[in-house]
Amino acid sequence: MPTILGQNQYGKAENRVVRITRDGDTHHIKDLNVSVALSGDMDDVHYSGSNAHVLPTDTTKNTVYAFAKEYGIDSAEQFGIHLARHFVTSQEPIHRARIRIEEYAWERIETSDGNSKFIGADEVKHSFVRKGQETRTTQITFDGERWQVVSGLKDLVVMNSTNSEFWGYVKDKYTTLQEAYDRILATQVAAQWRYGWSSDEERMPNWDKSYAQARKHMLQAFAETYSLSLQQTLYQMGSRIINSRSEIDEIRFSLPNKHHFLVDLEPFGLKNDNEVYFAADRPYGLIEATVLRDGVEPQIPVDMTNL
Amino acid sequence: MPTILGQNQYGKAENRVVRITRDGDTHHIKDLNVSVALSGDMDDVHYSGSNAHVLPTDTTKNTVYAFAKEYGIDSAEQFGIHLARHFVTSQEPIHRARIRIEEYAWERIETSDGNSKFIGADEVKHSFVRKGQETRTTQITFDGERWQVVSGLKDLVVMNSTNSEFWGYVKDKYTTLQEAYDRILATQVAAQWRYGWSSDEERMPNWDKSYAQARKHMLQAFAETYSLSLQQTLYQMGSRIINSRSEIDEIRFSLPNKHHFLVDLEPFGLKNDNEVYFAADRPYGLIEATVLRDGVEPQIPVDMTNL
Amino acid sequence: MPTILGQNQYGKAENRVVRITRDGDTHHIKDLNVSVALSGDMDDVHYSGSNAHVLPTDTTKNTVYAFAKEYGIDSAEQFGIHLARHFVTSQEPIHRARIRIEEYAWERIETSDGNSKFIGADEVKHSFVRKGQETRTTQITFDGERWQVVSGLKDLVVMNSTNSEFWGYVKDKYTTLQEAYDRILATQVAAQWRYGWSSDEERMPNWDKSYAQARKHMLQAFAETYSLSLQQTLYQMGSRIINSRSEIDEIRFSLPNKHHFLVDLEPFGLKNDNEVYFAADRPYGLIEATVLRDGVEPQIPVDMTNL
Amino acid sequence: MPTILGQNQYGKAENRVVRITRDGDTHHIKDLNVSVALSGDMDDVHYSGSNAHVLPTDTTKNTVYAFAKEYGIDSAEQFGIHLARHFVTSQEPIHRARIRIEEYAWERIETSDGNSKFIGADEVKHSFVRKGQETRTTQITFDGERWQVVSGLKDLVVMNSTNSEFWGYVKDKYTTLQEAYDRILATQVAAQWRYGWSSDEERMPNWDKSYAQARKHMLQAFAETYSLSLQQTLYQMGSRIINSRSEIDEIRFSLPNKHHFLVDLEPFGLKNDNEVYFAADRPYGLIEATVLRDGVEPQIPVDMTNL
Repeated sequence: MPTILGQNQYGKAENRVVRITRDGDTHHIKDLNVSVALSGDMDDVHYSGSNAHVLPTDTTKNTVYAFAKEYGIDSAEQFGIHLARHFVTSQEPIHRARIRIEEYAWERIETSDGNSKFIGADEVKHSFVRKGQETRTTQITFDGERWQVVSGLKDLVVMNSTNSEFWGYVKDKYTTLQEAYDRILATQVAAQWRYGWSSDEERMPNWDKSYAQARKHMLQAFAETYSLSLQQTLYQMGSRIINSRSEIDEIRFSLPNKHHFLVDLEPFGLKNDNEVYFAADRPYGLIEATVLRDGVEPQIPVDMTNL
Repeated sequence: MPTILGQNQYGKAENRVVRITRDGDTHHIKDLNVSVALSGDMDDVHYSGSNAHVLPTDTTKNTVYAFAKEYGIDSAEQFGIHLARHFVTSQEPIHRARIRIEEYAWERIETSDGNSKFIGADEVKHSFVRKGQETRTTQITFDGERWQVVSGLKDLVVMNSTNSEFWGYVKDKYTTLQEAYDRILATQVAAQWRYGWSSDEERMPNWDKSYAQARKHMLQAFAETYSLSLQQTLYQMGSRIINSRSEIDEIRFSLPNKHHFLVDLEPFGLKNDNEVYFAADRPYGLIEATVLRDGVEPQIPVDMTNL
Repeated sequence: MPTILGQNQYGKAENRVVRITRDGDTHHIKDLNVSVALSGDMDDVHYSGSNAHVLPTDTTKNTVYAFAKEYGIDSAEQFGIHLARHFVTSQEPIHRARIRIEEYAWERIETSDGNSKFIGADEVKHSFVRKGQETRTTQITFDGERWQVVSGLKDLVVMNSTNSEFWGYVKDKYTTLQEAYDRILATQVAAQWRYGWSSDEERMPNWDKSYAQARKHMLQAFAETYSLSLQQTLYQMGSRIINSRSEIDEIRFSLPNKHHFLVDLEPFGLKNDNEVYFAADRPYGLIEATVLRDGVEPQIPVDMTNL
Repeated sequence: MPTILGQNQYGKAENRVVRITRDGDTHHIKDLNVSVALSGDMDDVHYSGSNAHVLPTDTTKNTVYAFAKEYGIDSAEQFGIHLARHFVTSQEPIHRARIRIEEYAWERIETSDGNSKFIGADEVKHSFVRKGQETRTTQITFDGERWQVVSGLKDLVVMNSTNSEFWGYVKDKYTTLQEAYDRILATQVAAQWRYGWSSDEERMPNWDKSYAQARKHMLQAFAETYSLSLQQTLYQMGSRIINSRSEIDEIRFSLPNKHHFLVDLEPFGLKNDNEVYFAADRPYGLIEATVLRDGVEPQIPVDMTNL
């Protein structure tokens, strides 16, 4: 047979699970989108259609929901670890499991502001509004021995309205861009960071704290960097996380340069003193890079995707 | 001629304007998506292609950017009023202007938390993160005499994890639904409310305060209503706004019932005590209604759209 | 009570139904997205939460699937008529039903090309590829006596690479646009046309033939009109349909002017003789108008939406 | 310095270029979305913000438009090769260029059907309708010596209404799925295939012919395979392309199993003899695999993305 099978994986993608936990009248919510990808001894199903080694994708879906009950959802990472371990250890033909999770944050609706004089003005503890900012992501991979955890976020849109310049670049025959000494710098952050944790013998990071801290450092580095290029800002964002969080070894960013063009108001007799901008859609600059702790091997692939 | 022209309008849609205002080192940001629709004496351009009455859509775009400089952007509503007045009063063939605006909220990136020991640890006042929750909307219509202002929001996702029931409904031969005595109630709110203000002689509402208050009452009514149907919750949300805000006469909601189905875990020997839910996409219930002050004429059309 | 209920409707939206019909080995496919909206005597459910008049949205979903079996799907329009009639005539509190349908077209995968020398080289009659061009739409409304059928399409993207000009327009202080004597004209057609048929006593149109003919006339009018403005092209598209199809009384278009800007290549020593264009996203001109048969009353609302 | 820079690349993404070619009255259209990613000696811009090695993303955009004039667009692949060669050979710090292109197909609007008795009834040769089916993609990578061309398509939706089974799979404690002996098999094909061509010394494939043939074989294999699993169908699609097209060495598929669930109509006294299906959105099975010519090294990464 002149053709052969290469890397392959399968599973149920985008299982939307909401888990409510009750602490008396106070409810807590976890809202995840879980995707399962399994691989292993799967030649037969490709070559002949024999499903003898195939745990149905429907079963992987059921497992997600059953585990939400059996283990609860402490964090997206912890939940993914439960799932990955289960698939690899319970099914002989399955040698590797990759669990990807998106998490949507919710916050409580405030009802006890003193102004709410209507029915039920006591504080309500089961009502939520979706936060709607970034989506938290994680990817858990397990091969039976080693763990790889790559967590991150996407769709976090940030802007500096000053402290950004761009000049001193290469000019060739197709260059028309004017140098800029005070411009808007805006991007929609997609970031994925890899934890050093890789074995059940090591102490597991505090996933939620680590997420909150990585996010905070990233935002602060973005805000505090006087930027001569988006590449420089990216590196600052990454290195501050690596320097601040010993549990994180590597981070990769995909940062679209969301151009805000100063509008030429001179035809209307007006001066635009960095006040009025056109927010463009396409094309956009796209800056991608990995920042890593000196001495570690990079593992995050060039093209990050989550779901 | 056996065919004639009916209602028509034209203009530039989705002009993305960002306005920065500087108060010393402290910057403020307004981020709008502005759509212009003009109508009037426009038969000729449709029948013969004569553009003699047509102010180009490109000019309406330029006007948006010029006005962002000339008038600033106090609120989306105020900005739309400037634009609508201009088009109707400056061009004889234009008899009516409708300005639609989406507004995206931003919040400051916090940098002065004491933990930020890196370069520039003073508080940064020009760095923002997009809030990412609901999109605020407004529609301003002006015919040279009367104003109509319909403001609102969309994509505000809310959930009650209890205090919702659904039973006692009609059962016909196609009914299989089981009655529910404790269910999740979740929706993605799209709301548009019409202000009573309609004339330059009347005192204009405080648009920003009115928005914040309408939003707050809507959320609180959602949270505090013990719901026997989404229709009942909708009515409570609307009536609380009408009763609390004298400047608002009418509100229309489009509320998808974002179904969260309790997962059957019995095949796995597990009991699901309102803990684990499948968040479904389609189909969804869709509940739409207008709530209005007794005695006023409804004006918001059945199919609300914004952009 | 100072607030009252206005127009309201409810039902299950976006029921995705696929119906396979077998004619021996030859299969046929209908692929619809059906949304139900019912209204009538529904005050109680809004005011008190009593569901005594409420047929559950879940039941309306079941009815869609049951009717796909009981009546088959001859056309989207015919299917919607069955559904609307059922809801209004079978439930006393329901006074009006509005059924909206999107239809996705499929075409057969060609297998008998003589080159297919692999297994099963006979023509396969159960394999399809989604056509992927426009989405066909319809909206059926029935109040127990009168029918209104508004059919149409959306997302049909068309382009003329010449025979379009734009000049002779109004110039004010904000006008900077240069006149154009040979430009690209491109748009993404959304159209909805209303049939004159309104009563069971009248002979029903051939819905599929009427759709195909309306689409053909619309495309031909777009292609054959030497355009001085998109408004003129719109009117030609509409009037040709009205003039050619006696069963259609009214049509409304929403036509975004998908701008293709000639790129300035002079800085690179190149002449751009209407060859290289930048296809812009936002903003875009938006031209909307109704064309109707002389003497009929317009009924299609200003803001067309489908789903 | 405890952190270092890893893989990085930058450029302008999503340059939307439309190229019109005139052959007398007959116009031809190429409609591309071009993304440029450059890498090389870029440490300084990340570490210090020095742009001395940075050709601006704006210049890469200009180059796309200038090359559309200078070279024309014979095929997406050929156009990408011109661009990649230019960036790597003209700028010393740039060591690698990756060009990604999406192509949107258009077809002519038919006007000469004999029924078009209106103005301009001759055949119009400058009017087009977007085909709207799959998007063609390519990715060209050049490091100054070796070429890699990975072409493909996405969003091609296909369905078999019979000749698909699924049974004989693993059953564990979370398995509830019933075996199926006649089901719908539907997927939305994303495929990327790598050409063996890698050097200017080799004869270049006919890119357009190769695309058309790969697409045809893929569709025919989908239609003609009696499927016992989507994995089996995937392998048939891939191996038929490898076996039929000697210029293609490797292909990777990402195939969502677009579930169509048979609706249970028994509660309504109806029998559903594989006629009425619910087309589900999420979750979906996701089957991914590489098929390659025996003896070649796989190069396409696990996570395919295009733009």
